[in-house]
Amino acid sequence: MTIHVNAATSVDGKLASRRREQLAISGPADFARVDRVRAANDAVMVGVGTVLADDPSLTLDDPELVATREERGAPPQPTRVVADSNARTPPDARVLDDAAPTVVLVAAGAPDERVAAIENTGATVLAAGDERVDLPMAFEGIAARGLVDVMVEGGGELIFSLFDAGLVDELTVYVGSTIVGGRTAPTLADGEGFVDEYPTLDLVDVERIDDGVLLRYDC
Amino acid sequence: MTIHVNAATSVDGKLASRRREQLAISGPADFARVDRVRAANDAVMVGVGTVLADDPSLTLDDPELVATREERGAPPQPTRVVADSNARTPPDARVLDDAAPTVVLVAAGAPDERVAAIENTGATVLAAGDERVDLPMAFEGIAARGLVDVMVEGGGELIFSLFDAGLVDELTVYVGSTIVGGRTAPTLADGEGFVDEYPTLDLVDVERIDDGVLLRYDC
Ligand SMILES: NC(=O)c1ccc[n+]([C@@H]2O[C@H](COP(=O)([O-])OP(=O)(O)OC[C@H]3O[C@@H](n4cnc5c(N)ncnc54)[C@H](OP(=O)(O)O)[C@@H]3O)[C@@H](O)[C@H]2O)c1
Ligand SMILES: NC(=O)c1ccc[n+]([C@@H]2O[C@H](COP(=O)([O-])OP(=O)(O)OC[C@H]3O[C@@H](n4cnc5c(N)ncnc54)[C@H](OP(=O)(O)O)[C@@H]3O)[C@@H](O)[C@H]2O)c1
Repeated sequence: MTIHVNAATSVDGKLASRRREQLAISGPADFARVDRVRAANDAVMVGVGTVLADDPSLTLDDPELVATREERGAPPQPTRVVADSNARTPPDARVLDDAAPTVVLVAAGAPDERVAAIENTGATVLAAGDERVDLPMAFEGIAARGLVDVMVEGGGELIFSLFDAGLVDELTVYVGSTIVGGRTAPTLADGEGFVDEYPTLDLVDVERIDDGVLLRYDC
Repeated sequence: MTIHVNAATSVDGKLASRRREQLAISGPADFARVDRVRAANDAVMVGVGTVLADDPSLTLDDPELVATREERGAPPQPTRVVADSNARTPPDARVLDDAAPTVVLVAAGAPDERVAAIENTGATVLAAGDERVDLPMAFEGIAARGLVDVMVEGGGELIFSLFDAGLVDELTVYVGSTIVGGRTAPTLADGEGFVDEYPTLDLVDVERIDDGVLLRYDC
């Protein structure tokens, strides 16, 4: 199983403005790269905060990438995975449309009627953890479904939890040449934050793309 | 007049942990580079938040850099500048010792007794702005004292205000290969944050230093 976190930040580490509005941090070459990373993985995962803020579809844009997947015997689209302890994903969210399969990870305490509404869209609901999604347990559950290479696209709450649990294998960050600012704007890694020990990454590649730079780390 | 902002961040844009404790983000080669940038400037500036959190001395470490300054007819040490609207810099702060001259920028409303305590240490107090330091006015005041090339070392509140006022000419960020995390940890640019328009920077250089990478932008 491999977990590859990919995100785009401003120079000051922000994923979005303080209004949590998405902004065009990266350019066309980086978008194409992200699409290729999606295509190379079995699943593409986000936290419910990203679903609520951006309503992303998380599907492949480039039909050639779909064809490449099919040639190697993979499903046309990677499975979408949402970490959503309380089943807050709206049934009309784009991640629940029929463009690709979807797994919603919930906690045992998620309200039954919201779980049912999500299941009604055709998505699979997997419970892991009591109050909050237990990530190691959840990844076992999705690996058992054949989803072993997972790309995580954010946001900062989920990414922090993944580092905190020591689950990240690779991190790619596109640093766009802009400043977003804001004490409360979401950053690449939010959560509680580390205080005594900090994960040490290994910078393996630096590549200029569009008007910014892509940093690649082994974790 | 030129304003060069320099800081070290984690991959997620943090200047320090949520406890505002300094952490060793950069290594020896980057420390030496920062010392050279200090030596090349007339003044080294921080916000009072950094004084209260880190109690930095802001002087040159390398005696050869002091000698180089003296050879070109400059004072041995750059002048230290603190943005401190309410004169909260403690009189025993290291920036107020006699290792270098210091200018404390205050607002007109700063309490007289605290201003007097700072002046008693031998520092110069300059008032600019009513409630908060008016940065364009303050930079005029320090330029009139011959301090025209200014390096700003942080923190995130001051850096945001400088970008907000369009005052930054150059930004260098050393991105250390670690994750700090934390919704409330200080980032490279905090403040209110931009929402509609974002400053666009020009990435002019990317250089691997120590275990991280130095990004250089024209602003
Ligand atoms: N620039 C980029 O590349 C990029 C990419 C993605 C997102 N974004 C931006 O990021 C922002 C959203 O980020 P975010 O940090 O608020 O949300 P997020 O990380 O997408 O989602 C966080 C939510 O996931 C749920 N969750 C379930 N299990 C979790 C666990 N074990 N650890 C952490 N979270 C868990 C939690 O809600 P429950 O407690 O209800 O489960 C949590 O509030 C948006 O502004 C979006 O635009 C930007
Ligand atoms: N990694 C690095 O390179 C680096 C460098 C520096 C600092 N740091 C870290 O950054 C943290 C401190 O950062 P910070 O953002 O809290 O503090 P800061 O930017 O150093 O100082 C902010 C304070 O400066 C004063 N100020 C005066 N005029 C201002 C203006 N026009 N705009 C903005 N601020 C003005 C304000 O206090 P008043 O309203 O009282 O004037 C404000 O609260 C510490 O944790 C420190 O360790 C790290």
